[in-house]
Amino acid sequence: MKPKNESVRRQIIDAATELIIEYGVAGTSTVKVAKRINGAQSNIYSYFKSKEELISGVFLYHQSMMINAIEPVFDTTKSPQDLVADLVTELLLFADNHPASIQIISAFRAQPNLRSQLPTIADNQLLTEMFKLITRYQRDGIINQTPAEFIAEAIFSIVVNYSNAKLANESYAPKLTKEMVIQLITDFTFI
Amino acid sequence: MKPKNESVRRQIIDAATELIIEYGVAGTSTVKVAKRINGAQSNIYSYFKSKEELISGVFLYHQSMMINAIEPVFDTTKSPQDLVADLVTELLLFADNHPASIQIISAFRAQPNLRSQLPTIADNQLLTEMFKLITRYQRDGIINQTPAEFIAEAIFSIVVNYSNAKLANESYAPKLTKEMVIQLITDFTFI
Repeated sequence: MKPKNESVRRQIIDAATELIIEYGVAGTSTVKVAKRINGAQSNIYSYFKSKEELISGVFLYHQSMMINAIEPVFDTTKSPQDLVADLVTELLLFADNHPASIQIISAFRAQPNLRSQLPTIADNQLLTEMFKLITRYQRDGIINQTPAEFIAEAIFSIVVNYSNAKLANESYAPKLTKEMVIQLITDFTFI
Repeated sequence: MKPKNESVRRQIIDAATELIIEYGVAGTSTVKVAKRINGAQSNIYSYFKSKEELISGVFLYHQSMMINAIEPVFDTTKSPQDLVADLVTELLLFADNHPASIQIISAFRAQPNLRSQLPTIADNQLLTEMFKLITRYQRDGIINQTPAEFIAEAIFSIVVNYSNAKLANESYAPKLTKEMVIQLITDFTFI
């Protein structure tokens, strides 16, 4: 096996990202990725042992980017309302700056048959802490009693809708402000 | 051209539906559809003139099914709260009974580059009436002032999340009731 190189690894992830957005997970292959970066398929296998590993590598890359974007505002000494508003603000800014990451994460979440291959909340420290906090807020009667995972999915879906409306240049997109989206999310999150 | 036959047309739509769910829109072709129904590609062209026509035919088929499911409860003499709760109840029942339709509609909506090919609200009478009503409720200050299309997208996404949680057998799915989902939607729809 050739020695690994971070910039090649990144090239592979970028090419796979484009392919998944264009052709979906099923329509993406290591052959197509190799073709797009003018490399050999065998070279890809020195970074990712299989298509499955490549696909989950792409998901993890974009999920980490998103988590890194919201981590700095995750401060549990804030009021629950301020904390949720700050987290959603960062998510919307992230969606503006990294629409491909939002599309990748939502493409994976949208396919029930892929979900079992994805990392779970327990695999990530920040997500674990966030879910603990949601559960505590629910016990305290501050937020909606719907399962915490469903509330998190709902928040993420609204962010995806915001991102898609901007990307698709929907006629209502110019009237849609971040403040409106935050308000809508706050309305269903808090009791 | 051969004479058209409703049951063949339906077979083509069903095969294309399965393929889109498995391989995405980009990964679906008239060749693959023909193979799946053991027919000739030329036969498909007597029902749909191009891949584009087939794809939008599949979308319209599932969208009509969904619209037919909610139409009976769309009665504008009800209170806004009852009307929204009844519409969402029908959508959730539809999601239970026709998960493939929900997956198809959401797969199309999730791809910003496909949106311009989809029928608009103005192409459907019920959707046009629903949007008029949302606009009236907004003018009356009853519901959220976010663009009506964004509220409709939000409602649909929450229904999709409900459907995906059940399909993927998420650990929280058994605790997730229709009443919780209706409550969550009502919380952000009404002021």
